[in-house]
Amino acid sequence: MTKLWKKGYELDAEVEAYTVGEDYLLDQELIPYDVGASIVHAEMLSECGYLTKEEAESIVSALKKLESLEIKKEDEDSHTAIENYLVEKLGETGKKIHTARSRNDQCLVAMRLYFKEHLQKLESEINALVKELKKKKDVPMPGYTHTRKAMPSSSRMLFSAYADMLEDDLALLQPIKKILDKNPLGSAAGYGIPLKINRESTTKKLGFAKTQENPIHCANSRGKYELLVVNVLASVMLDLNKISSDLILFSTSEFGFFKLPKELCTGSSIMPQKVNPDPLELVRANYHVVAGYGAMLKGICSNLISGYHRDFQLTKGPALKSMKITLTSLKLMSKIIAGLEQDEEKMKAAMSRELYATEEAYKLVEQGVPFRDAYKEVGKRFM
Amino acid sequence: MTKLWKKGYELDAEVEAYTVGEDYLLDQELIPYDVGASIVHAEMLSECGYLTKEEAESIVSALKKLESLEIKKEDEDSHTAIENYLVEKLGETGKKIHTARSRNDQCLVAMRLYFKEHLQKLESEINALVKELKKKKDVPMPGYTHTRKAMPSSSRMLFSAYADMLEDDLALLQPIKKILDKNPLGSAAGYGIPLKINRESTTKKLGFAKTQENPIHCANSRGKYELLVVNVLASVMLDLNKISSDLILFSTSEFGFFKLPKELCTGSSIMPQKVNPDPLELVRANYHVVAGYGAMLKGICSNLISGYHRDFQLTKGPALKSMKITLTSLKLMSKIIAGLEQDEEKMKAAMSRELYATEEAYKLVEQGVPFRDAYKEVGKRFM
Amino acid sequence: MTKLWKKGYELDAEVEAYTVGEDYLLDQELIPYDVGASIVHAEMLSECGYLTKEEAESIVSALKKLESLEIKKEDEDSHTAIENYLVEKLGETGKKIHTARSRNDQCLVAMRLYFKEHLQKLESEINALVKELKKKKDVPMPGYTHTRKAMPSSSRMLFSAYADMLEDDLALLQPIKKILDKNPLGSAAGYGIPLKINRESTTKKLGFAKTQENPIHCANSRGKYELLVVNVLASVMLDLNKISSDLILFSTSEFGFFKLPKELCTGSSIMPQKVNPDPLELVRANYHVVAGYGAMLKGICSNLISGYHRDFQLTKGPALKSMKITLTSLKLMSKIIAGLEQDEEKMKAAMSRELYATEEAYKLVEQGVPFRDAYKEVGKRFM
Amino acid sequence: MTKLWKKGYELDAEVEAYTVGEDYLLDQELIPYDVGASIVHAEMLSECGYLTKEEAESIVSALKKLESLEIKKEDEDSHTAIENYLVEKLGETGKKIHTARSRNDQCLVAMRLYFKEHLQKLESEINALVKELKKKKDVPMPGYTHTRKAMPSSSRMLFSAYADMLEDDLALLQPIKKILDKNPLGSAAGYGIPLKINRESTTKKLGFAKTQENPIHCANSRGKYELLVVNVLASVMLDLNKISSDLILFSTSEFGFFKLPKELCTGSSIMPQKVNPDPLELVRANYHVVAGYGAMLKGICSNLISGYHRDFQLTKGPALKSMKITLTSLKLMSKIIAGLEQDEEKMKAAMSRELYATEEAYKLVEQGVPFRDAYKEVGKRFM
Repeated sequence: MTKLWKKGYELDAEVEAYTVGEDYLLDQELIPYDVGASIVHAEMLSECGYLTKEEAESIVSALKKLESLEIKKEDEDSHTAIENYLVEKLGETGKKIHTARSRNDQCLVAMRLYFKEHLQKLESEINALVKELKKKKDVPMPGYTHTRKAMPSSSRMLFSAYADMLEDDLALLQPIKKILDKNPLGSAAGYGIPLKINRESTTKKLGFAKTQENPIHCANSRGKYELLVVNVLASVMLDLNKISSDLILFSTSEFGFFKLPKELCTGSSIMPQKVNPDPLELVRANYHVVAGYGAMLKGICSNLISGYHRDFQLTKGPALKSMKITLTSLKLMSKIIAGLEQDEEKMKAAMSRELYATEEAYKLVEQGVPFRDAYKEVGKRFM
Repeated sequence: MTKLWKKGYELDAEVEAYTVGEDYLLDQELIPYDVGASIVHAEMLSECGYLTKEEAESIVSALKKLESLEIKKEDEDSHTAIENYLVEKLGETGKKIHTARSRNDQCLVAMRLYFKEHLQKLESEINALVKELKKKKDVPMPGYTHTRKAMPSSSRMLFSAYADMLEDDLALLQPIKKILDKNPLGSAAGYGIPLKINRESTTKKLGFAKTQENPIHCANSRGKYELLVVNVLASVMLDLNKISSDLILFSTSEFGFFKLPKELCTGSSIMPQKVNPDPLELVRANYHVVAGYGAMLKGICSNLISGYHRDFQLTKGPALKSMKITLTSLKLMSKIIAGLEQDEEKMKAAMSRELYATEEAYKLVEQGVPFRDAYKEVGKRFM
Repeated sequence: MTKLWKKGYELDAEVEAYTVGEDYLLDQELIPYDVGASIVHAEMLSECGYLTKEEAESIVSALKKLESLEIKKEDEDSHTAIENYLVEKLGETGKKIHTARSRNDQCLVAMRLYFKEHLQKLESEINALVKELKKKKDVPMPGYTHTRKAMPSSSRMLFSAYADMLEDDLALLQPIKKILDKNPLGSAAGYGIPLKINRESTTKKLGFAKTQENPIHCANSRGKYELLVVNVLASVMLDLNKISSDLILFSTSEFGFFKLPKELCTGSSIMPQKVNPDPLELVRANYHVVAGYGAMLKGICSNLISGYHRDFQLTKGPALKSMKITLTSLKLMSKIIAGLEQDEEKMKAAMSRELYATEEAYKLVEQGVPFRDAYKEVGKRFM
Repeated sequence: MTKLWKKGYELDAEVEAYTVGEDYLLDQELIPYDVGASIVHAEMLSECGYLTKEEAESIVSALKKLESLEIKKEDEDSHTAIENYLVEKLGETGKKIHTARSRNDQCLVAMRLYFKEHLQKLESEINALVKELKKKKDVPMPGYTHTRKAMPSSSRMLFSAYADMLEDDLALLQPIKKILDKNPLGSAAGYGIPLKINRESTTKKLGFAKTQENPIHCANSRGKYELLVVNVLASVMLDLNKISSDLILFSTSEFGFFKLPKELCTGSSIMPQKVNPDPLELVRANYHVVAGYGAMLKGICSNLISGYHRDFQLTKGPALKSMKITLTSLKLMSKIIAGLEQDEEKMKAAMSRELYATEEAYKLVEQGVPFRDAYKEVGKRFM
């Protein structure tokens, strides 16, 4: 197999395994985006006279036929796999696909296209969950502060607070979508290319809002843009973490307000009676996984001068994995909310007198007692 | 001194110190916002008939006279300090300020007002730095990848990449400003208040875009909104970390492209010759401080059921400190960029032949050689 | 005021404030250790002939008289404050204290001495808590997995698990104490000193186990040793986080197993009935604060070449603050455990049949049924 | 395929995929340890009369024959795969292997055995690197502070500082090995087992130093022990991050002190001249990956009451992956150090006059000038 940077001396095998890492696995998901950008790149090269019309057509046609492509470990990454495929099919012509681009901008553009599509999915999944939350019946229940009964509340108030939290995230998402909607293809290794290429052409065809003009800006956005995405994902996961924490506690026998659908719970290997909220616990824990991936990105991108460093290779995994976790967690949560039953009797039974202490105090206030004195008066009734 | 929650038994002194923490120091900065919200709250209470016109007027007038107020450790926080001040001035009437509010929504609204003002400052400081960056002269210099000479570049390209990075942050900032522009006052302890108050009145007077209706949403946004702000601050600091990393390296005697203004450097206590880039190193390190504060927030807010927990008290410090660090770092960086000199001679001298290797390869490409072959051919010239 | 590195040009005031940061406050705690090391350093200088006997005696005597010394912002740090004090008292002679040392090794040795003393305190506080835990009465209670009743357990088993966890931390502490027990004084700025000093002399007098010979090792341990300490502190805080989580839940009215002593709880400013576990919630949250300080250290120390960088200045705060938080949290927890009451009646009442399901299954096992079949059989009884 | 906790209703397929996660992949590495513990467990069950001698022999013999076992996704984890294998081979008898144990203690003991072996490997790899470092030739070179020339140093001093740093980690490792050297098998789901089993028997046969008596301690150590290990790994990786940072900078053309062996470098896909230090950059970045895994563990384990939660499932991946990264990074670094060449000429040429400024000042000191005055005098010579 040919490496894109091969010059004639052999790379140590252990080093090779270390540098490839899990890229060949991660890139599998990026293939369609990489292929899409390659098609447009070939067309642009032809427009600008760096490929003949025939060369471009044969490359584009070969790429369009490519339904699936398994990246082998020897390929290193999707970029090399695609070039190797083209060379195999088209010989010399295949080699020309890498004219006027570097693996850096190729990777940047594939990630950008992946994000554009998946941020859209994220939006849909959030909306689907919000919809489920708004369907739930309203039942009075205690409101808690400090994990202690505080004041009267209701499940509608709780579920619609979840919806509001998720809608904050939707707002958060909008500028990310806009920031990422810039075409980096053509920035090459971070300092442009000494050829007369037409960046606007690929920008238009790939559906980007604009061209990311400054090549150093393109290079420096590697890792940072991944972090911006993961920050939003972590924000969504934090909401799911809160929802999970509520549902786990409120479905214990001690609280008993909610019942989780059995088909969404799992058992114990030793205790026959157990029906455990494992999926919710995993959602709760997966918040920390996504937050941890954010921490990785924050570290990897720091204390580095401008321009590409191989360190950035390791920013791909945290971003792709966080996206996958968040999308599946949202799907799961929609299912859990849909199947969640409310035990109205237990919820009503939990509405004990202490919840109304503030109300008692305010009755005194309405009779003219300053709040602080009313507070002390009512406080004594509960000691 | 009176605690707002005092009921007649004594709190352990050590416990008291532990629970107050550094709140009494942090809250000093929140006093103006807390006072502002208190004035509007008193007016609303009077509109709704919970305070007489006279009571409201005396409270408002006392608050408006309050030019400075030092929070003592015994006060615990700004909320208590303000109430204690009013009681001292107005007796019974002073106690009525806490009608229809809790320390929770009082803290939420003060923080919200603080953020609104300081996010505006942040925007100004970012814009000021962008302006400085755009003023710098353009000088050719090597572009680096892997901390090695890669291709020809220029200082204009570099400085304007910094500007682009900061402009991404400005975009990032917009939804945060919008998300925070909701009035939580009136949500009380997170479950509303059993009185007929007029939340729209305080919303309008405090200049919020809208009322944050759901009280549980208000409570659950504690900590999360701080995190959203700190995420943006960390993004700005990441840019400054990159700029610092560049300037520190490019101003060494080995590179020598830039000269830092002496009055912005410090010396060594033992080595007489040293002129060290300490401010830049502190900016670089302060990125990690802000990122660490973000990590605190991410942890504190997790695995907690809905509603207030005292854990959230500890979200104030990381947010206020991160804001301060970021604002001063931006100011400092503007000053450094303004004073930065470019050593044109050394920059020119560094433009060695290897930077043009890609160009050499592309000359072969223009002669019809496929890029991969041209690459190998030129590669040999540098081995 | 004189800066140790002053050379004749003025430092920008804003830059100065930024670079000093909060060092002048943090260093207040380091004064005794810095003074102690300075005394020993002066004596060594005299032994080696770099100070006359008289000079050394006057310096040592002035330092010994120094009972308290307030570091002013203009002093920057304790090192400068001490030198300024000596110059004020002794004139020319005072200036000689900085012979053969740098602020780097001065800071390193002060921190090392601080840690040695405080790790000892940490050990005592952990032992004190373990002792309290072992005193508690044994009461049967349910054991939980997945926050659901699992199998019979007891409060003795729970409290002694806490003790075991803390004893793991004590084991963890031992090598840290050993690693830190090396004298860095004399490593100067990280490359030694061109004078014939006697490092063994200060090592012996300061009570270190050995001299940290390699000056680069001394410099590179800045930040890393702080991190090692904070890692142990975070491990202790994680235990306290677990204990807090247990006590908060088990003292709710829904569970009701434990009662927290009222004088260790606080109230609500609006709800008169509330007795909230604020100290426990703050302990829980403070784990995340310490973990966040650890994250800061991990970031600050990374991607830097060998030798001192000003970035390391920011490693002092996270370490000192984490130590303080952990020591006070331990003290508080000892008090809480001492005052904790167990509600034997409620604990007994909670021992419901489902806890014995595994036992039922094992009765079938003892009758020869394979465990998997017994499990299924008993499982049906609880569906 | 049979799940260990199956009770007769169907689990949602999406939920199943979510809960299994990547466990079936991760557990592949744990198979030998899980099998080893299972053998010893079967023997103990027979000793205690819960298995006949024949049953035990057939189980042990089947397990010993098991050379490789691929865990399928339907198996969920190694525990189930092993039980399924035994049932397939031995029918009813196979089912009895799960007598007196839970997946919790089965997982705990497998991880513990894995760690014991891999911490040993870690020690060997650290020692191997230390050995390489001590072999390098001593060459004078500049010492840097603030990334600026400071004082004369040498490559021997640098390399042996690395060795000292790694030896600190070896010290750090010792208590971890001891803390983990406790047998959790028999703690079942965290509350022991209502059978008369002999825990000492498995402790002895598995080579543990002692039995981890308290079952809640066993359960609560899940995640925390993983964190202790990852903390040490992160400490080792921090050293490698420092070494990488040094080597990357010192091998640039601007510094030129070191030459990296070509077979350990990689090229650029676009710039023919480049020989990039990719492996070193990946080592540098992998520190942040391991630190990020540590952050995950810190989050996952927090704010949870005692006893098992499914959240802990997600602690396995970060620990296993961090171990693998650290071991391969150490191996790689040994290879890099072995092949590293020192360019004595360039190193000598870099020993410019400014490095000797402190020496110049000390010459004045030896003539009786107070250090502060000598410092100012020499400082002027370099302005």
